[in-house]
Amino acid sequence: MAARVQRLSRSMLKTLRDDPADAETLSHKLLVRAGYVRRTAAGIWTWLPLGKQVLENVTRVVREEMDAIGGQEVLLPALLPKEPYEVSGRYEEYGDLLFRLKDRKGGDYLLGPTHEEIFTQVVKDQCTSYKDLPVTIYQIQTKYRDEARPRSGILRGREFTMKDSYSFDVSDEALAESYAAHRVAYQRIFDRLGLDYRIVSAVSGAMGGSASEEFLAPAAAGEDTFVQCPQCGYAANTEAVSVTVRPASTEGHGPVEKLDTPDTPTIETLAAHLGVPASATLKNLLVKVDGEITAVGVPGDREVDLGKLAEHLAPAEVEVVTAEDFEGRDDLVRGYIGPQGGMAGKAFRYLADPRVAPGTAWVTGANEEGKHARNVVCGRDFEVDQYLDVVVVEPGDPCPNCGAGIELDRAIEIGHIFQLGRKYADAFELDVLGQNGKPVRVTMGSYGIGVSRAVAVLAEQNADEQGLCWPREIAPADVHVVAAGKAQQTEAALEIAERLGAAGVRVLVDDRAGVSPGVKFTDAELIGVPTILIAGRGIKDGLVELKDRRTGEREELPVDEAVARLTRD
Amino acid sequence: MAARVQRLSRSMLKTLRDDPADAETLSHKLLVRAGYVRRTAAGIWTWLPLGKQVLENVTRVVREEMDAIGGQEVLLPALLPKEPYEVSGRYEEYGDLLFRLKDRKGGDYLLGPTHEEIFTQVVKDQCTSYKDLPVTIYQIQTKYRDEARPRSGILRGREFTMKDSYSFDVSDEALAESYAAHRVAYQRIFDRLGLDYRIVSAVSGAMGGSASEEFLAPAAAGEDTFVQCPQCGYAANTEAVSVTVRPASTEGHGPVEKLDTPDTPTIETLAAHLGVPASATLKNLLVKVDGEITAVGVPGDREVDLGKLAEHLAPAEVEVVTAEDFEGRDDLVRGYIGPQGGMAGKAFRYLADPRVAPGTAWVTGANEEGKHARNVVCGRDFEVDQYLDVVVVEPGDPCPNCGAGIELDRAIEIGHIFQLGRKYADAFELDVLGQNGKPVRVTMGSYGIGVSRAVAVLAEQNADEQGLCWPREIAPADVHVVAAGKAQQTEAALEIAERLGAAGVRVLVDDRAGVSPGVKFTDAELIGVPTILIAGRGIKDGLVELKDRRTGEREELPVDEAVARLTRD
Repeated sequence: MAARVQRLSRSMLKTLRDDPADAETLSHKLLVRAGYVRRTAAGIWTWLPLGKQVLENVTRVVREEMDAIGGQEVLLPALLPKEPYEVSGRYEEYGDLLFRLKDRKGGDYLLGPTHEEIFTQVVKDQCTSYKDLPVTIYQIQTKYRDEARPRSGILRGREFTMKDSYSFDVSDEALAESYAAHRVAYQRIFDRLGLDYRIVSAVSGAMGGSASEEFLAPAAAGEDTFVQCPQCGYAANTEAVSVTVRPASTEGHGPVEKLDTPDTPTIETLAAHLGVPASATLKNLLVKVDGEITAVGVPGDREVDLGKLAEHLAPAEVEVVTAEDFEGRDDLVRGYIGPQGGMAGKAFRYLADPRVAPGTAWVTGANEEGKHARNVVCGRDFEVDQYLDVVVVEPGDPCPNCGAGIELDRAIEIGHIFQLGRKYADAFELDVLGQNGKPVRVTMGSYGIGVSRAVAVLAEQNADEQGLCWPREIAPADVHVVAAGKAQQTEAALEIAERLGAAGVRVLVDDRAGVSPGVKFTDAELIGVPTILIAGRGIKDGLVELKDRRTGEREELPVDEAVARLTRD
Repeated sequence: MAARVQRLSRSMLKTLRDDPADAETLSHKLLVRAGYVRRTAAGIWTWLPLGKQVLENVTRVVREEMDAIGGQEVLLPALLPKEPYEVSGRYEEYGDLLFRLKDRKGGDYLLGPTHEEIFTQVVKDQCTSYKDLPVTIYQIQTKYRDEARPRSGILRGREFTMKDSYSFDVSDEALAESYAAHRVAYQRIFDRLGLDYRIVSAVSGAMGGSASEEFLAPAAAGEDTFVQCPQCGYAANTEAVSVTVRPASTEGHGPVEKLDTPDTPTIETLAAHLGVPASATLKNLLVKVDGEITAVGVPGDREVDLGKLAEHLAPAEVEVVTAEDFEGRDDLVRGYIGPQGGMAGKAFRYLADPRVAPGTAWVTGANEEGKHARNVVCGRDFEVDQYLDVVVVEPGDPCPNCGAGIELDRAIEIGHIFQLGRKYADAFELDVLGQNGKPVRVTMGSYGIGVSRAVAVLAEQNADEQGLCWPREIAPADVHVVAAGKAQQTEAALEIAERLGAAGVRVLVDDRAGVSPGVKFTDAELIGVPTILIAGRGIKDGLVELKDRRTGEREELPVDEAVARLTRD
């Protein structure tokens, strides 16, 4: 197989020495500077020739591994009619994230952010019997999300390439198998791409469903925070971290004792005043859940994550309380709330962090102006209506698996696998005829890989001060041949490039006239092809230099030996 | 290379026996019935697994041939900001054909119908010197046009796949070379696809520019009419057909003679009344060109093509005259207009078909109620201000090349190559530094292939009563193995499929349980893989049947021989 030899003298390539003004992340800076991508509008990118090749290489790996688990490739439209998304409720739910438009007849359309609805319709049309299942179908296609703050170059674009696949099964067990197959395929894909990644438990978020894992690539530029246990290796999305409620005896505590606590508006001032750690105090945050006053109790040294709270309580609506909510409520003493209730008894539904376990004793508000209470014991003096994991996870929190102190890291989500269950099958009444002749509701999995994002993550993880250094499978070429000199060097470089190309090696050859060797070396480092071959002064003695882009190792050797070594790889 | 063996028992495939109700064209019917595509909305289609494979095969051929002429592949966004299309004027010009939308901040966007503007911007950014040119860049990408009447399945969709490429050169000669290279690449592409096509001269239409040719695939379902000369092979878009003005002497004609012609409201009645052929009469159509009354003279047996007229006179606006336009114009005698003028002299600017050549004599209106005139000689009694090819072309019209009678046929446009010139370079001020150190305005070519449309045309041209019959390079498989019987046949079919697959042959194997041989044969004919191998009753004697899908030829032969023959191909 003769691979393509790309001559830079004939390529549309302009490298930049300076970072683009708006670039924050390393991948954004380098991909623009090295001529891989170019901004067309906010969050909307053009893939230049080098970038398109890298994108194509990632696509090929994804496609091969999806085919290997029996995935059938299809291609759905990006321009979609509104109706299926109304059936699922997502036409509204997506809010501003959805690009909506009208056609010439006034019909409502949207640009697909993800395709569960349309895949469900396709399978409803194509599969009628249990014999037609399992089916896994996928596409590698352009998706659209009108992000509020598109940033980080191709890391979070408004138009981007995704591989999305969907499995359709007749039973939960079969779904678990389809899910497991995807998990293996995803590992193979990310391994082949040479990505550093973790598989973490994830909550379902807006998708709704059961088992769900994320593939996260640790990166400083990441928007996701995740939890790792250095002891047992457990890893999870912070939203998935849970703490176990460990009840203890309510006996052995002293009686509730009221304390005068003037001038203690904060947990810190209260703890200092009483000489106890903040973790011994109980903070009670008031919110409204579907309009009803509700308190959330957490240890005083922890913060409530309102996003998590809202997610746990969805579809109920969670709002923070305002001054108006206290009007006419003498039982709610602002700043001195306690779950044990005051004269009027308990004034609200009480949700709490699992750390507020039965048998634990707390300093908390006494439901009287200027007063707190100590020895307020859970299970004796107050009851928790519902335990919820709603505190912001912090480093050192116990690992849910082994109890050791966890660590927090930033990462980029590159994949997500998800047992959707019957949500969409219910919405679209997707049944097949079962073995017993009766209709069976189908159960679904949904699986995504950010293909264009993976390119950014690869750049993010494979770069140094000088530029990019791609893994070989993904690089736009195997070897970057630099003609460093005059006609003799250029001639030799082109000849070497042809020999390598004829042997199936993908070659980029910098044969540009009027460009100095220094500029060519700088560009080669920036572009990041794994091996650099320099045809320089040594060429008159039949010698070239080989340089490993990643390690920087250099070696001078005869042309034939260099060619032989590179064609062996 | 081990090719993929697709087992129908594990494939999402549902064939239909009946044509879809809304299908008009053969390709639409068959592609839906054979499970290649599925309608998602009007003019918006889903590519099912078989269809996606065919689309991918076409894409591969296009990509290889574009690379072969040095095309560099890029990928531009489909969601585009309004501004560049305002610079070119096309944001308005496209009218209802353009899908327009707003983002969450109210910014105006469109879905790209074609990308001249964005490619021009990319090159302005990437190329600064004559040394950076020539450049040919292309993409295979999704395009959007809000067609008034999307029809014919994927033949004319509102979302479709196109290969569009653009050449950038510093001189007209260099543009001609880029154009010629594309012409060759297009011939290679359409030849490899096995398409029956013609290359015809085309006028530029809304694009504006100079040299332009269309690649047309003759097909009954075609929306384009084109002209062919059976004598010399000349072919052209009907809009490109021109007639030469052949002046003759104005001598030897009798003087103009006025005739009473009551009750002759039409050319037919006039010709009958005078006993002359319609072609001897001169019909004068009144229009307004930018508001000015203008007459268009054509032989009485011909029709004026108002679309052509408008195109020739663009950007001037052409309107038909109404009763109001005759008010106060006694010199315009409705129904009796002649170019020779009446008492008041000539009343309008006069455009004419080249057949109204100097020296020809006509019967035409006498500019008096109820009267015509004969012996009205062009060049003696009236002058033509401008000759234009505006009559509807008809079979038998003279070939512009050799003069023989032309034929008219219907076709589908599958490709278009076009010397754009400096239209967009002017709009975006695209200059590069020339060899002499001064800026040179760049000249462009624009070239398109309807990739998804090509699939429809291939289906249209390669089908019979039973279904599709794909050319091998495009087919979803090389061999369709049918297991026609019980377990023994299925086992044999699978084994043969594996052997073929291991040898690099792409195989579809119908191993479905509980499906009769008859249904399997019908499906094999419908799906249209070029070779069908049937593992039937003969299998117990080690025999299979090979059937050529196109010719219907059948042959029974030993398994090993069949495998050997198919792997040799």
